Amino acid sequence: MELDSIYEPIREDLQKVEESLVAVADVDMPILKELLNYIVKTSGKRIRPALTLFSGKFYNYDLGLLLPVATAIELLHTATLVHDDVVDNSPQRRGKVTLNKLWGDTSAVLVGDYLLGKCAELTARTENIKVMKLFSNTVMVISSGELRQKGLSFDKKQSRDDYYRWIAAKTASLFSAAAEAGAILANSPREAIQGLGDYGYNLGMAFQVVDDILDFMGDEAKLGKPPGSDLSQGVLTLPTIIFLERYPDDDTVKKTLGSKIAEDIELAREKICQATVIQDCLDIAHNFSVQACQALEILPDKFLRSHLVDLAHYVVQRKR
Amino acid sequence: MELDSIYEPIREDLQKVEESLVAVADVDMPILKELLNYIVKTSGKRIRPALTLFSGKFYNYDLGLLLPVATAIELLHTATLVHDDVVDNSPQRRGKVTLNKLWGDTSAVLVGDYLLGKCAELTARTENIKVMKLFSNTVMVISSGELRQKGLSFDKKQSRDDYYRWIAAKTASLFSAAAEAGAILANSPREAIQGLGDYGYNLGMAFQVVDDILDFMGDEAKLGKPPGSDLSQGVLTLPTIIFLERYPDDDTVKKTLGSKIAEDIELAREKICQATVIQDCLDIAHNFSVQACQALEILPDKFLRSHLVDLAHYVVQRKR
Repeated sequence: MELDSIYEPIREDLQKVEESLVAVADVDMPILKELLNYIVKTSGKRIRPALTLFSGKFYNYDLGLLLPVATAIELLHTATLVHDDVVDNSPQRRGKVTLNKLWGDTSAVLVGDYLLGKCAELTARTENIKVMKLFSNTVMVISSGELRQKGLSFDKKQSRDDYYRWIAAKTASLFSAAAEAGAILANSPREAIQGLGDYGYNLGMAFQVVDDILDFMGDEAKLGKPPGSDLSQGVLTLPTIIFLERYPDDDTVKKTLGSKIAEDIELAREKICQATVIQDCLDIAHNFSVQACQALEILPDKFLRSHLVDLAHYVVQRKR
Repeated sequence: MELDSIYEPIREDLQKVEESLVAVADVDMPILKELLNYIVKTSGKRIRPALTLFSGKFYNYDLGLLLPVATAIELLHTATLVHDDVVDNSPQRRGKVTLNKLWGDTSAVLVGDYLLGKCAELTARTENIKVMKLFSNTVMVISSGELRQKGLSFDKKQSRDDYYRWIAAKTASLFSAAAEAGAILANSPREAIQGLGDYGYNLGMAFQVVDDILDFMGDEAKLGKPPGSDLSQGVLTLPTIIFLERYPDDDTVKKTLGSKIAEDIELAREKICQATVIQDCLDIAHNFSVQACQALEILPDKFLRSHLVDLAHYVVQRKR
């Protein structure tokens, strides 16, 4: 199933989020305008704002509150990407040259900060303290999680638990906040907020596991970056961790961590892909997706739920 | 007059801000704890949180609300310094090696983000939407102002107005927000909030002009960095701008912008210091300080006001 049909019940309003993102770049200062325009106009899947809108639909849907928060969620995501690209010195993202490469680290750090401020400003428009607290906590969880992970780079003893803790912080926390915020703003009952938060969390876990599989298996054109880039940066993700669990004496992959030699990366990548490792990773992603769907059972409206179930399947089956 | 006597009416509560800053570093994650401890324990003057406490004293003083916001104000300041040091690749700040030099840019970017999140979290504790909006706007003003300024580096045609606009964004906005937030949380009347905001703004302008004078005139031991460092980074501040206005045909200073040769910097620095330029800058700082004091006239409590007047004088007369 394609995202377009999954998004059907929220299509019009997601388009308004898109317009609202473009409006963020409508500022007086030419240099800021140029930078913001460059980063808000991307071909992103907009899953996070879609989650906010969907979650807002089960009870009292109020687009006036949901719109600024859905926009803020996407901007928070963007801000962390912009800062990550500085930190990782990344040249490409989603097939586009990164901001840090085009305008330098200075601009990228400052625009990221601006976006974090803009997020807080948009969230404050709801005048909902719970949602505002959710946002600030998510910023802390993402940045501190990333910080811990940087300390683990190149550490070949990383376990699956280290990995889960990391992706919970960097990805699932924001998916969860996106869903929870929508539910809170719709005045949903406590159990529904919890259920949608759990859905978002597990969806985020599945999403990230698949992202990390695609870094090994994906098509460069669709990924917008060369495959194996995690390996070359010394980052251990689930496929590598499972490979090293299974073949503790194999040195090819260990030696390749952080290597800039394309042939070495390609060799290690092929080794990991040929083993049953990838299937195991897909099974794990599938499990998270099943847990996501189970968390929805508390909710009314089977039609809406079926779209979120489709989204959970999409996240596992996607090729980019 | 010394800061200690000026701070007398808020001494005990400012000590609580200090404890609250230390408590920010009390986190479970060892690496984050280490980084936070390093940056919150500084010998800063704590003028911004002091402003919040003073402003809160004119009407209904509520330390439970003021404490998290005063802490947040100092952390917001710290976050911008940490990111600035990454952007400027600065090796030293307040006599200490910078975080980016000790732990690398990655850690510095991420800790700055964490602090911005922590600010928002602390501010949200007040459940005061106005104060939360003030914060998010200030983050946007500071980062966008800094971004515009980076585009002007090495531009010898910068005017006094460019400079005022820059320091209004990078310094006066936070001084103003610090004072305004305190006044808002004390349920002060509208005119008092405005008056204290204006006081903060002008105090911040005076503070920054003096900071920029000290970069030329100050003692390396007291400054915690070598004098002339703005020149060597290609940054035009008020003394250089006034010097170039007055001696448009003098090439020594123009050629020195961005130079890493200590002798060149020293020569340019001496030229600027020997002229009447510094006195002009001091007069300008003094004018801002006078405007700050005038803004206080609307407030009751002459005793408290006299301390803020002393603070305005201190800011101009200080040697570090």
